[in-house]
Amino acid sequence: MTPDTPAPGSLRPGGRTARVRDAVLRAAGDLLAERGFASLDLAEVAARADVGKTTVYRRWRTPTGLVADLLVEMAETSLPHANTGTLRGDLLANARLVAKTLTDSRQSRLFKAVIAAATSDDTAAEALRRFYDIRLTEWVPCVEAAIARGEAPPETDARAVLSAVSAPLYYRLLASGDPLDDTTITTAAEAAALAAGAGLFTRPQGQSAR
Amino acid sequence: MTPDTPAPGSLRPGGRTARVRDAVLRAAGDLLAERGFASLDLAEVAARADVGKTTVYRRWRTPTGLVADLLVEMAETSLPHANTGTLRGDLLANARLVAKTLTDSRQSRLFKAVIAAATSDDTAAEALRRFYDIRLTEWVPCVEAAIARGEAPPETDARAVLSAVSAPLYYRLLASGDPLDDTTITTAAEAAALAAGAGLFTRPQGQSAR
Repeated sequence: MTPDTPAPGSLRPGGRTARVRDAVLRAAGDLLAERGFASLDLAEVAARADVGKTTVYRRWRTPTGLVADLLVEMAETSLPHANTGTLRGDLLANARLVAKTLTDSRQSRLFKAVIAAATSDDTAAEALRRFYDIRLTEWVPCVEAAIARGEAPPETDARAVLSAVSAPLYYRLLASGDPLDDTTITTAAEAAALAAGAGLFTRPQGQSAR
Repeated sequence: MTPDTPAPGSLRPGGRTARVRDAVLRAAGDLLAERGFASLDLAEVAARADVGKTTVYRRWRTPTGLVADLLVEMAETSLPHANTGTLRGDLLANARLVAKTLTDSRQSRLFKAVIAAATSDDTAAEALRRFYDIRLTEWVPCVEAAIARGEAPPETDARAVLSAVSAPLYYRLLASGDPLDDTTITTAAEAAALAAGAGLFTRPQGQSAR
């Protein structure tokens, strides 16, 4: 128990609630990055955030609840899509943003912890899916603009194009361990732009592989 | 303690040692697939494999030691590379094999558990890297044959081509949660073949992104 545990209902709306959330999610992110999901403890998060334990338990309930809200916050602060005038340029800007996140020391450990949690926890997996939905949706206009410019066929699946940019970066982070260098970033963007231009992302989902 | 715990040094080489390894790795894989890495317990593995606890502790020492050996066994049983006569055909065969593993109920949970372990454990991460090294090396001749046929430039990085095939499949399994369907499999192979043919995988590592 921390001495500043507030009585239930004592939270004022607005500024203080937002500050409490900021502090709690910052502490949760730090602890996740330091020690991973398995060690995430709500009482420790409350102590580190200097927030009452009761508040944390009442608002977030479980470690998964904290992870889900952390992902909502990370999605809310997603950077706006680029507008470079070419699909290749926009996808390169996207690849650089994703790579910047995944090579940042704190952020990469945080993502690894959340993805690890999602492998065995359905609520975390669902929160992670919503996070990628928001991130991908923000960048869909880049593919729509490319279609309008005639750089890709009208039926192009924007989500598939953007996933193709991120996939090689995540594969290195999580599986092969190969370095996430400039060559990887450029190739990810250019290969996705080339495949989109060739119409490879126009197939309806569920069609048989030939 | 199980009643059949053998005295140290009682193991005979050859057949019995191999049978013990088979049983232990099978049990470890089952438990990983059922409950994930965090719950992997050597005594439980021994009991499930009907092998003496002392044997398991002496030979594998830690849960990570078990995971590392399981990955060695999985790499040893990697399927030989295809030889369809075209890079596109070979990469499609590769994509189908990877997807078959990642959509198999037991195997996909096993991979998720091992990848989750690798996010927070350096020994597991190193074992996972060696596993992908062996898998990728087995398929390098497909890219070399494509180069010999003039389908890709001589400087093509075979490992990068093969990683590009696997990456979209793993991204769906671990991050976006999008279905790993036939369209995804075909597109992963065709996009990698197209990018290889266009010379996108010839850049030396570490070059600046333009």
